[in-house]
Amino acid sequence: MSIITLTTDFGTSDGYVGTVKGVILSLAPNVTLVDITHEIAPQHIQQAAYVLHAAAPYFPPGTIHLAVVDPGVGSQRRALVVRTSKGFLVGPDNGLFTLFLADEPGAECHAMTQPAFRLPHVSATFHGRDVFAPAAAHLARRLDHSEAQRATESLPRDPEASRRYTAQAGLLALEEWGPRVNDPVTFTIPKPAQQPDGSCLGHVLYADHFGNLITSITGDVLAHLDHVEISIGQRRIAGIKRTYTEAAPGDLIALVGSSGHVEISVVNGNAAQSLGLGPDSPLTLRTTQEA
Amino acid sequence: MSIITLTTDFGTSDGYVGTVKGVILSLAPNVTLVDITHEIAPQHIQQAAYVLHAAAPYFPPGTIHLAVVDPGVGSQRRALVVRTSKGFLVGPDNGLFTLFLADEPGAECHAMTQPAFRLPHVSATFHGRDVFAPAAAHLARRLDHSEAQRATESLPRDPEASRRYTAQAGLLALEEWGPRVNDPVTFTIPKPAQQPDGSCLGHVLYADHFGNLITSITGDVLAHLDHVEISIGQRRIAGIKRTYTEAAPGDLIALVGSSGHVEISVVNGNAAQSLGLGPDSPLTLRTTQEA
Amino acid sequence: MSIITLTTDFGTSDGYVGTVKGVILSLAPNVTLVDITHEIAPQHIQQAAYVLHAAAPYFPPGTIHLAVVDPGVGSQRRALVVRTSKGFLVGPDNGLFTLFLADEPGAECHAMTQPAFRLPHVSATFHGRDVFAPAAAHLARRLDHSEAQRATESLPRDPEASRRYTAQAGLLALEEWGPRVNDPVTFTIPKPAQQPDGSCLGHVLYADHFGNLITSITGDVLAHLDHVEISIGQRRIAGIKRTYTEAAPGDLIALVGSSGHVEISVVNGNAAQSLGLGPDSPLTLRTTQEA
Repeated sequence: MSIITLTTDFGTSDGYVGTVKGVILSLAPNVTLVDITHEIAPQHIQQAAYVLHAAAPYFPPGTIHLAVVDPGVGSQRRALVVRTSKGFLVGPDNGLFTLFLADEPGAECHAMTQPAFRLPHVSATFHGRDVFAPAAAHLARRLDHSEAQRATESLPRDPEASRRYTAQAGLLALEEWGPRVNDPVTFTIPKPAQQPDGSCLGHVLYADHFGNLITSITGDVLAHLDHVEISIGQRRIAGIKRTYTEAAPGDLIALVGSSGHVEISVVNGNAAQSLGLGPDSPLTLRTTQEA
Repeated sequence: MSIITLTTDFGTSDGYVGTVKGVILSLAPNVTLVDITHEIAPQHIQQAAYVLHAAAPYFPPGTIHLAVVDPGVGSQRRALVVRTSKGFLVGPDNGLFTLFLADEPGAECHAMTQPAFRLPHVSATFHGRDVFAPAAAHLARRLDHSEAQRATESLPRDPEASRRYTAQAGLLALEEWGPRVNDPVTFTIPKPAQQPDGSCLGHVLYADHFGNLITSITGDVLAHLDHVEISIGQRRIAGIKRTYTEAAPGDLIALVGSSGHVEISVVNGNAAQSLGLGPDSPLTLRTTQEA
Repeated sequence: MSIITLTTDFGTSDGYVGTVKGVILSLAPNVTLVDITHEIAPQHIQQAAYVLHAAAPYFPPGTIHLAVVDPGVGSQRRALVVRTSKGFLVGPDNGLFTLFLADEPGAECHAMTQPAFRLPHVSATFHGRDVFAPAAAHLARRLDHSEAQRATESLPRDPEASRRYTAQAGLLALEEWGPRVNDPVTFTIPKPAQQPDGSCLGHVLYADHFGNLITSITGDVLAHLDHVEISIGQRRIAGIKRTYTEAAPGDLIALVGSSGHVEISVVNGNAAQSLGLGPDSPLTLRTTQEA
């Protein structure tokens, strides 16, 4: 009983997501399907990468994460299957899995070239249906629950050790899907930059449904939450709150969000709308003098 | 094989809902997950209360209804588990369960203080993931299908009788989750008011996806549907229809909707948009003289 | 373990979809539920017809497709169950199944008049909950997986042969639901028309989530993709591409989409918005002279 999650830019107004699920259930009837989201902005690979990377750790070991944001569909871009300690990843080779590969540079990547794991007719415009859904379903069929757990939980980080471990444990051989890939496509992860004046320059990664601006600055670098000042747009925010309830409705605050990143929020409001900011907007964080 | 339903204001564009489901499936792999809605207006507790209360009676006995609209996340507000004849309720103690508690004032409420039923690390901003999802999953694990049925179907209304019944039937003891709560937070349910001139003053509770205005006036008070006149905004509506097809496309009508409340609709149109009305808009209903 | 898919205009902001699922799971707890879409434009029967018809072939044999876009709810319009080679169809008799019935004119249609397959109380406005959901659930209960497969896979096209086959194979008798219907409601399928000048006049059927304009012209009529010119709105498009990546971002192109229809797209953009066009907009396709 494997789990397959879905992360796409398909929207939910057409039958595209249902079609993908039909293909999966035709091949693997007992699979549990879970939508992460289908509202990734069309062709926005980085947004999908962050959303999936934040959700995946909360799924059981051996979960298969299917991600299809695929502006290069029909071209020569490769189709990938990746084994990580946070489950298997299936999708186009266009950077979707960048954050997982940054965590585990030795994660086993294979190009999916095996025709037996595709639909008999592959269209030029809908590989979610014709290539990725059947690949994920065939993967699910090979994994029984116990193997699924063993498959990824205690995977060594080193590529060679990982390969040996996989062979010794009798784990699913991804070679069946196609040749090993050593150069998966990745994007440059926006890292906060230390400035000459000692401040830290970060960027907004994306705005969530509540209008919270999730930034590239992670909370683990903040020793003293009180002695920090953030500048974003035309506004300054003093200190970092622990919860929304430490401020009044309408206040602009910063806090460390549930994914560990510094977030800019309006209490019971929408910071993205109030500030008119979104992805790539810069912010600076500086430590203030203690009195 | 318990069912867990989800009602939130998380939206579906981020990975928040998927993350909650990942937590549940990690703890209770065989559970069936059903979305009620994730499009409650942010922090709109009353809307969530009405939507969940209308849907819950149609689920099997013993269903677990997880509701997370949680402006007080991270504060001292309690986390609740409630046993009702319409299933179990799990969510923050902020009024979400008001309508269930009005139906069954003696329903057994417990604060969920047991750390074993949370994730090891509880964030300050995402208790849906860290507190409520694991609580619902642990509840599902304790309920096998037959017990789930016994658990709530024939629950006595009186609190003391209910407690005795629960103990005698060997039902799941909610004490495991934490101490009994006798004063759960509730909001004042807007009740239609009798006016001096004999008319009835009600309010719009919410507008649904079709633009139907669902009102606080329930249909059971209407003896003669024909001899009624409704005033709403600048408009008057004579009589109450039984179906949309009794009027012409574009007509403004009133009927008793599927939840038993009087609804104001435009046939094949959108009453909320046409009238420019929404939650809290007043309406009056009066009995007309028979000729 | 039957599958029931859902295609509705209910939206996802209310509890309507959840309520329908609650009714189904109360009657058929082991069913797998799959959303096709709930974002059909309100009362837009043709859009639902196209979306469901495109998705259904990708589901396992014996899948039950529940479709509820129902402007005539509460009137005398019939409720239908249909057995096709692409699964069972359940919904109002208003044209929703037109495309399936065009493929298989002899498909077995029955009016669902059997009160035992409805909820005890049938409202005048929500037959999705009170009539169609219980009908689909009762259908699922009668079909075990193996029978579900036999039921539709090798169904003869001829009505009489189909009836004999069904009886001989011991398949589920739809007579239990109600009397045979020989005149299901259908709409006129917009077919491309050959023009006096040799060009072909078609129409936009609908715009998808990406803004692709799906047209009534199917790709199988196009022998030479290069020697074709399309006029739509004020624009002309030369040739038909095989993939989006054969053109540059922002280019307006035509290609044969994943459902086999000619589609008008803007690469990494939104053709519906760029052109200001949508359902029913005309386009002409002509063969160009070879040099």
